[in-house]
Parts: sequence; structure tokens; C-alpha cells
Amino acid sequence: MLCIGLDPDPGRFPLKISREKEPIFTFNKAVIDATVDLACCYKPQIAHYAASAAERELEKTITYIKDLGVPVILDAKRGDVGSTAEKYATEAFERYGADAVTINPYLGHDAMEPFLAFADKGVFIVCRTSNPGGADIQNLVMQDGDQLFERVANLAAHQWNGNRNVALVVGATRPKELARIREITGEMTFLLPGIGTQGGDVAASIKAGQGGGLIVTSSRAVIYASSGDDFADAARQLAQSTRDEINQHRQ
Amino acid sequence: MLCIGLDPDPGRFPLKISREKEPIFTFNKAVIDATVDLACCYKPQIAHYAASAAERELEKTITYIKDLGVPVILDAKRGDVGSTAEKYATEAFERYGADAVTINPYLGHDAMEPFLAFADKGVFIVCRTSNPGGADIQNLVMQDGDQLFERVANLAAHQWNGNRNVALVVGATRPKELARIREITGEMTFLLPGIGTQGGDVAASIKAGQGGGLIVTSSRAVIYASSGDDFADAARQLAQSTRDEINQHRQ
Repeated sequence: MLCIGLDPDPGRFPLKISREKEPIFTFNKAVIDATVDLACCYKPQIAHYAASAAERELEKTITYIKDLGVPVILDAKRGDVGSTAEKYATEAFERYGADAVTINPYLGHDAMEPFLAFADKGVFIVCRTSNPGGADIQNLVMQDGDQLFERVANLAAHQWNGNRNVALVVGATRPKELARIREITGEMTFLLPGIGTQGGDVAASIKAGQGGGLIVTSSRAVIYASSGDDFADAARQLAQSTRDEINQHRQ
Repeated sequence: MLCIGLDPDPGRFPLKISREKEPIFTFNKAVIDATVDLACCYKPQIAHYAASAAERELEKTITYIKDLGVPVILDAKRGDVGSTAEKYATEAFERYGADAVTINPYLGHDAMEPFLAFADKGVFIVCRTSNPGGADIQNLVMQDGDQLFERVANLAAHQWNGNRNVALVVGATRPKELARIREITGEMTFLLPGIGTQGGDVAASIKAGQGGGLIVTSSRAVIYASSGDDFADAARQLAQSTRDEINQHRQ
């Protein structure tokens, strides 16, 4: 159930990696090689590549992971009107060949349809995020007493899931809300970011999320477990202890 | 007040352009050269470049526009947790050198802060979009009777605008809601997409939005005014008639 987030930040690479011709791909490849037997999937976060003009290294990273037979979730949180959403879906699924993508629900159903139309791909709709500011909008209370994230969970499970390819992003920092979203959606799969650096609790999240698929994501805690030349070994150790912790709490 | 949206779609280019080495940049350059005296700014929509792996052509397009002394709004509608939002802000403002960017409010204040911290850049927060599905989330009614887009407008104007660099995206297809957002925000600048292909009404939008800055965006209607080799001349004619229509309704 462990997903490893690949959020490469060249400023944090060991000097040996920084000197490589393709530092981001070299770093990612070392992390992937060291953890591939421990991860159910990988989640590259696209901003970390775009900020460095490293689209080619993102393409190579995704191809490398897929050639190992492991699925890739492209974390992009895209959201725009229909004709533009089609281009974003092309970016995620055709250009990069991702198996799934994260998207933002604020623009409504027609902004999501071009992604959902790829029936063999997964679409992770952002529902309740792990950051403190998530409450600003997602916890607003509606006229009927529901909070906004509950409404999004409801729409996702009961209106937008015609192709049975919808999943949700639910921060691991909010176990009570996670349990509520599970109640609303039934056995839908959730991606749980926020373990590790952001302080999410593995045990509480797995308990709260039981009853459907869970993918627990750790990104910076794993890939920057060491800032030295032993970063790949350290990433493996952290991934292993996180996976073991997850398995210990599975029912 | 006319902003021209650069949403290049290689499938719609004249054959002569398709055969160029950099068809997207060549197409954009022809449109820009033909309209630069008519536009207050240009708005490239990033998905149209990403879908074609044309980041280099986007860079060249933005540099070309800025060298003409005209500002660029990068339409990206990004939104993610703080550490990732920093990377997206780097992408928009440092890599591409955009003067402003569009962002999505669903993740709350800490997802917007890295953009807002660039005090000399403009940050257009998506408030009420021009697409039919926009109502799914943006028109939800809160406990206090406000609709969600009204709450976003309120937060944008009264909590998130410490650097005085916030503006809003408000679809030109919703004049009544536009008038309400003007009431809430005072003299804030609005970007109004939805004129042209999406059916937005110039006269009604300008009337509803009066009392603050307005930037009226037309994208596909202008750049695909003709599918033939005369596309640049046709774009100029359409841009001119749209600008004249805007000016006719200004007070």
C-alpha cells in the first residue's frame, strides 16, 4: 500500500548526483531501484520537474517505472474548462503515459470529463488536502450542514464515477474526515498524502480509511532520508519501515 | 482591455504553418505581430503547450511578447500544498517569466502564498468560471446564504490581498454573478474569459463589471478566425472588432 512520491529538488541532491548530466533522472532511478520491491506505485509531482525545465527527465522517469511493471500516478492537480481539460488529459495520459492523474474539482464535471473518459486510467479527485489552508474552502459548511469536502466526496462517488475510475485524494493528517469520506463513498480507493514530513499518522489513517482501497504516500521523508551519497539506501530503509508500519495496521 | 488567449492547437493550423520547424511559435508569432497594437496583454494557456511537449515554444512565445513591451498572463490554474506551490510559482514566474498567473483556490491560503509572495507579479484567483459545470461547486450555498464563489471573492479581496497583487477570474458568461463579485471586491481587476466561442456577452459583462479593472479575453474566436493562410489577418480583424465592441461599452 506504499506509494513513493518523487518530488525531486536539485538543491537537495548529493554533489555526486548534481554533477550528472540528468541529475533528476539519475536521482529518481537510484531511489526507484532501491525501493521497487516495497512500493505499490510511484507518484511524481509534476511541478518539481516543470520548475527545472525537466520534462524530458519526467518522461524518462515514468517510462523507467512502467518498464519495471509498476503503475505511475502523475500528481498534477489540473483543472480547467472542457477544451483545455482535454489538453491536460493528453499531457498526463498520452504524452507522459501515466496510469492515473490527480485533478482539482473546483471547475465541476465538464472539467473532469476529459480525464474520466479514459476509462482504463485512474482519476484521483482532490477532496480533502493535508495542508493547514485546506480548511479555508474544503471545510466550509453548506446550507444542509454538509462540509464542502463531503459534497465533493458525494459527487465523486455518486455522480462522476460512471466509468468506475474515480478515486480520491484525502490527506493523512485528517483521520476523522477520512472516516467520514469512507462512509460517504463506500469502497472507493483513496490516495493518502501527508505521511512523514507533513506529520500524518499511519495507524490512525489506516484505521479511519478501512473499508476500501488505500494508497499511503510518502515523498520527501523517503527520498531525502539522507542528504549524503547513501540517499538510496536510506530511502530504502525508510520505505521499508513505513511499509512495515502500514502492514502492521492493516486488518 | 482586450486580452488575446494563445491556445494553439496544431491540428487546426494551416498546412503552411504545420510544416514549420516550430509550428506553435510560428503560429503565435504571426498572431501576435498582427494584433499587438490591439491587445493589452496575451494569455497563453499552458496545457496547449504541454500536450505537444512544446515548453520551448511557450518560453519563446512569452519572451517574444515581453520584448514587445506587452504583459503576459500564464493561464495555468495551479493549486497544491505550500512546498509544491513554490515549485509552481518558480515555473510561472522564473522559468517562463510571466507577469501574472492564474491559480485555483480549492487548497486554501497556504497553497496561494508562494505565488502571492511575488509582490510585483499578478495572481488571478479562479472565482467563477465560464463553463456549465462551474455551478457544481462554485454555486453551492453556504450556511450563511452565500454561494461558494462569493466566499472566494470575499477571501480574495479581504484576506489574501496583503500584497495588493490579487485579481480574479470571472467568466463572461455570468453577468449577474460578475456584478455580485464586483460588489464584494471593490475595484479589484477581473479577467473575463468566455467571450467568443463560449458565448459570453461583451456589453453585459462590461456593464456588470464596471467599478474596477476589466480584462476581456478572447482566445479561439480570434486565433482561429480563419483556418486558411490568412489566419493572422483574420485574427486582426476579429481582435479589432472585439476591441471596438469593448470600447463602445466602456463608460
